[in-house]
Amino acid sequence: MPAISKDLQEEREKVNFNIEEFTNWFYGGIEKVEKKRSLEKLLLSDPDLNLSLDTSYLSYKEQYEEAIRRSTITYRKVIDLLKKTGGNQIKAGAVLEVLRSCMIGCINKEGDPLMLQFTMFLFMMFKLTNDEQKAEWLPKVLNCNILGTYAQTELGHGTNVRGLETTATYDPITKEFIINTPSLSAYKFWPGNMGHTVNYAVVLAQLYTKGQCYGIQPFIVPIRDLETHKPLPGITVGDIGNKMGYMTMNNGYLAFNNVRIPFKNLLMRNAKMLEDGTFIKPKISVLNYGAMSSMRNSILNDTAMMMSRAATIATRYSLVRRQSPINPNDPEPKIIEHKTQQYKVFVPLAKAIIYRIVSSYLDELFTQIQQESSSGNFDRLNELHALNCGLKAVMSEEGTKAIELCRLACGGHGYLKSAGFDSIYRLCTAAQTGEGENTVMHLQTARYLMKTFTKARNGEKLTEGVAYLSEFINLNGRRLIFDDSIRGILRAIQTAAASKIVIAWKHIEERKKNFTAEEAASYTGIELTRASELHCHTCLLQIAIVEIEKAIGKVSRALGEVLRNVLELYAVDTILKLSGDVLLFVNMTAEDVEKLQKRLENSLQFFRSTAIGIVDGFDFSDQILDSTLGAYDGNVYENLFAATKKSTLNDEEVNKSFHLYLKPFMKANL
Amino acid sequence: MPAISKDLQEEREKVNFNIEEFTNWFYGGIEKVEKKRSLEKLLLSDPDLNLSLDTSYLSYKEQYEEAIRRSTITYRKVIDLLKKTGGNQIKAGAVLEVLRSCMIGCINKEGDPLMLQFTMFLFMMFKLTNDEQKAEWLPKVLNCNILGTYAQTELGHGTNVRGLETTATYDPITKEFIINTPSLSAYKFWPGNMGHTVNYAVVLAQLYTKGQCYGIQPFIVPIRDLETHKPLPGITVGDIGNKMGYMTMNNGYLAFNNVRIPFKNLLMRNAKMLEDGTFIKPKISVLNYGAMSSMRNSILNDTAMMMSRAATIATRYSLVRRQSPINPNDPEPKIIEHKTQQYKVFVPLAKAIIYRIVSSYLDELFTQIQQESSSGNFDRLNELHALNCGLKAVMSEEGTKAIELCRLACGGHGYLKSAGFDSIYRLCTAAQTGEGENTVMHLQTARYLMKTFTKARNGEKLTEGVAYLSEFINLNGRRLIFDDSIRGILRAIQTAAASKIVIAWKHIEERKKNFTAEEAASYTGIELTRASELHCHTCLLQIAIVEIEKAIGKVSRALGEVLRNVLELYAVDTILKLSGDVLLFVNMTAEDVEKLQKRLENSLQFFRSTAIGIVDGFDFSDQILDSTLGAYDGNVYENLFAATKKSTLNDEEVNKSFHLYLKPFMKANL
Repeated sequence: MPAISKDLQEEREKVNFNIEEFTNWFYGGIEKVEKKRSLEKLLLSDPDLNLSLDTSYLSYKEQYEEAIRRSTITYRKVIDLLKKTGGNQIKAGAVLEVLRSCMIGCINKEGDPLMLQFTMFLFMMFKLTNDEQKAEWLPKVLNCNILGTYAQTELGHGTNVRGLETTATYDPITKEFIINTPSLSAYKFWPGNMGHTVNYAVVLAQLYTKGQCYGIQPFIVPIRDLETHKPLPGITVGDIGNKMGYMTMNNGYLAFNNVRIPFKNLLMRNAKMLEDGTFIKPKISVLNYGAMSSMRNSILNDTAMMMSRAATIATRYSLVRRQSPINPNDPEPKIIEHKTQQYKVFVPLAKAIIYRIVSSYLDELFTQIQQESSSGNFDRLNELHALNCGLKAVMSEEGTKAIELCRLACGGHGYLKSAGFDSIYRLCTAAQTGEGENTVMHLQTARYLMKTFTKARNGEKLTEGVAYLSEFINLNGRRLIFDDSIRGILRAIQTAAASKIVIAWKHIEERKKNFTAEEAASYTGIELTRASELHCHTCLLQIAIVEIEKAIGKVSRALGEVLRNVLELYAVDTILKLSGDVLLFVNMTAEDVEKLQKRLENSLQFFRSTAIGIVDGFDFSDQILDSTLGAYDGNVYENLFAATKKSTLNDEEVNKSFHLYLKPFMKANL
Repeated sequence: MPAISKDLQEEREKVNFNIEEFTNWFYGGIEKVEKKRSLEKLLLSDPDLNLSLDTSYLSYKEQYEEAIRRSTITYRKVIDLLKKTGGNQIKAGAVLEVLRSCMIGCINKEGDPLMLQFTMFLFMMFKLTNDEQKAEWLPKVLNCNILGTYAQTELGHGTNVRGLETTATYDPITKEFIINTPSLSAYKFWPGNMGHTVNYAVVLAQLYTKGQCYGIQPFIVPIRDLETHKPLPGITVGDIGNKMGYMTMNNGYLAFNNVRIPFKNLLMRNAKMLEDGTFIKPKISVLNYGAMSSMRNSILNDTAMMMSRAATIATRYSLVRRQSPINPNDPEPKIIEHKTQQYKVFVPLAKAIIYRIVSSYLDELFTQIQQESSSGNFDRLNELHALNCGLKAVMSEEGTKAIELCRLACGGHGYLKSAGFDSIYRLCTAAQTGEGENTVMHLQTARYLMKTFTKARNGEKLTEGVAYLSEFINLNGRRLIFDDSIRGILRAIQTAAASKIVIAWKHIEERKKNFTAEEAASYTGIELTRASELHCHTCLLQIAIVEIEKAIGKVSRALGEVLRNVLELYAVDTILKLSGDVLLFVNMTAEDVEKLQKRLENSLQFFRSTAIGIVDGFDFSDQILDSTLGAYDGNVYENLFAATKKSTLNDEEVNKSFHLYLKPFMKANL
């Protein structure tokens, strides 16, 4: 191991809180940290993986082949682990979370071509099947004897699931469904792992029986031969081609031409059908709700972890890189001494921590509400759904920006792939359109807010996350006087959110005079989106306040100070960024804003001495970070230069293109 | 040519202004349009280029080799063209502008490995040489008998040029300079085309003579053998490795170990040296000012053109894609009918046009001021420099966001490389750190603003772009009453900018009591940056107003209305986005903001019927756009599906990784 750079050494010596305590808090307990570490070691230490190979120099096809190689090595270990946990996919969550983080972070940076197997495919085969189907399919899935994916999105339809065109028509004579792709826009398009990897898919299609359409239902459909891997008769399948990121995710297209599958391949946990073709509607239509919700929660956690990685890289680099003397004849300071740099790096750092807190909170809430649902209580489903949609949108957008900001904070070198930002940026931004396009997500949250405001007007009691709407009504048009405590900041943002919600509500009501309710809402879309954004910011801050206060009660005083400052920076930055909305509806003065700006600067100064402890406390191994700028040793220039050796162009002194093209070109005009 | 989609056809039929008139206005006259078209045809029509090959499927090395092949084909034509224009690089500007747009847009999406030849290398050899040197070198450069680049940035120093460490020590006995790289951080790192392509470089180094350092001077240094292309003795050179974008730009590293070059290789337009080693300082030290300024102007234009391309793709796609019925049982509308979609697409579209206008304005201003400088008048250099720095920062940041927004407006499909956003996003974002890191740029502009405010306080008359500071002082602390004309909007933003400038100025003054002036400014960095941002927004809007009013006086009424609406959307959106700052210092009410919001929506509605005409008027050929979603014919799904054929993974039905890895893996747990 190379020596630690002096610059980082001296920073680490100044840390005055217990880093390991931070780590344990961040990951939710010492047992979780130990499990995380042992899993990472198990998955990453295998020399067969050959992780030192930089796959970004390979061709598209070679990258895919290498990804399959790495994934099969890794999933063999995962299968063993899952067997040890009893094959229960819920219990296996911890394994899979680490797996995802390793596959994205390190083993397969450009996406895991088997990822769907233990996420959406397993989830659907677990959630949408009846007992008989479970018995038949689950062992094959868990043992990877069949490889599968989940095929929802089509070329012509993404977020609007009802618009899907693939058909499954029941033939009561042969007791089969006939799957068809009626048009080019009906091609399944985008499902991960589908292009050349899997042999099964859970396919969503419009079910037709007895001449009638019963809407979208899920079917398990074999698509490739288990022995030869050739597409089965009637199946057209392939790779959708190169993307901004997830190059080895093997997203595919899939079309059906009279593909017949047996009756029992209709997944019948919810809807039921009789063999004669009689369709029995499910009691509630929350078909994919759980799966999508769970995927979105994973996205939030992934986003928080990617932000943490980006902030780690930017922080360490800023403590090593020296540039631009402050006084003309001074030596060049560490760039972190520039206030502008602190602002660029520490705000994303604080945000990363807050987002991790919120994502953990949502995980717990999700588990709670799932338990309520399985015992027949669906009351809080709508609230969770609204929270989950809007927060997915805000956090994926803000997370992407934060990663990009950290990258920009590293100047030109941040643009190098070896810096480690590029791949996580491309993964993170995908979440802005994946699992529900962000604007559609906001509009769903906004719809909930409109209904909730109507309830509040009628004096109904609201749940905690939206109770501020009732408080706002009680203000009776008086302007809130700004108070600069953390809860005062929350109240100010809530007031702005409530005001925007009310304005959107009024505009809808006005428009209803001339338009249908749906048209009125559609024409108010821009304001609804903004209302949802503001509401989400209130949720983030509210959850953060409660969770950090809880944590402060449990940790040491030194760590408590660190967490308090994380909340301070996050809260102050948030209200400053939202000041355009807040100022409209809250009595906040220019002096208040100046004071907040001062607090922001003070908070940054506090981070100046604690940030290295925090990012070390994230406990990312160098393998996970995979960054020349962010390695633990801080030997930035040595690492940067070492990475140039991986460029295949440097394998030869003179590239053949010189003799083929350059030399004749230079001589042509002599 | 495939039939035009009905969806686009019906839109085009509704356009009520003359598209060709728009094109001619946009490019500054019919002659320029004709020249642009004929050059594009000349450069792009060559079948040898084999442009239908999608290079993103190739390996890193193959991509470079293909880029060299395409560039040499293209530059042969360029040399002929330059000969026809008399070899004058200024006159050749139009050729080079189109070349850059073609190379980035279409011929070499990932950067042109010969790009520096006719930009920075030629520019430096033209600007920094004396007459003798010109006579010796220029013909070789213009004929491409030697290939060169400009080597400034080092591993340890980018924007802070004074910190460069490479040394050039004069040896009066042999009459040579000895070039050395004293440390790892002194390695030249990043110069484009340097890794394996060029054989010469203009190198910046600290000049030592007679035991004294005379600061940074430029030298022309041979680095590879013209016949064998091997690095010359003492030279270490190679590729810096993979990056987020510009993969074929061949950015390189370069180190010197006692490399001797003759006396005459010191470029002596400015500083002079005698053969005995006596150094004669230049009268003014604007060494690279012109080149950097010119590069930044190019960036602004490139940014505007890339934004225009992104907006074209998003607009056309939004007029074809159908999703999510507004009323439950209605057919699915074109997604452009959703207000939120109009907001996402049309604001970037308006911004693209405004940025193009501003970049053309700056080009003219730059030429003017250059003429003034060459006749010894340097008065307006500082103003231009400040404008150029800040606008580069704002426009590259906003441009990147606009492209990303257009991509997100295309949902999941926007993430496909074939959509056409990916490569331009990666190119555009590079401009945020390239040619001067954005924060450093803002701080330079802010420094100018601080000086200017001091002048204003002293009653000095200010130039047009900053005259609002004097007006602000004349307000004498009274709050501006908001008036909602376009100039009223400008005044409101100017008031906010002036207020922020004054606050930053005051905070510096306060801090000066305890710190040096430089420290005081450094500690006020965050506020200075914001002040510069706001100032730049005033400049953008001010230039836009003047230029669009000029244009409206010249064009047809129908086109005038289009331009007026472009300005309206840009101005209203700008003030709404900046409302947090404006509300602090201007008497603007919640009602004013609601009215602006209404105007925004009305303006979007106007764009609804005109946007297709505007984007057609940008006159991007399908080859330049290179987008499945944005092609002229609007056959989105056909184009998307056709692009999947280019995926090399689809060359075989079954990839070899199935037999090598997947099958054994599936069988292992049977």
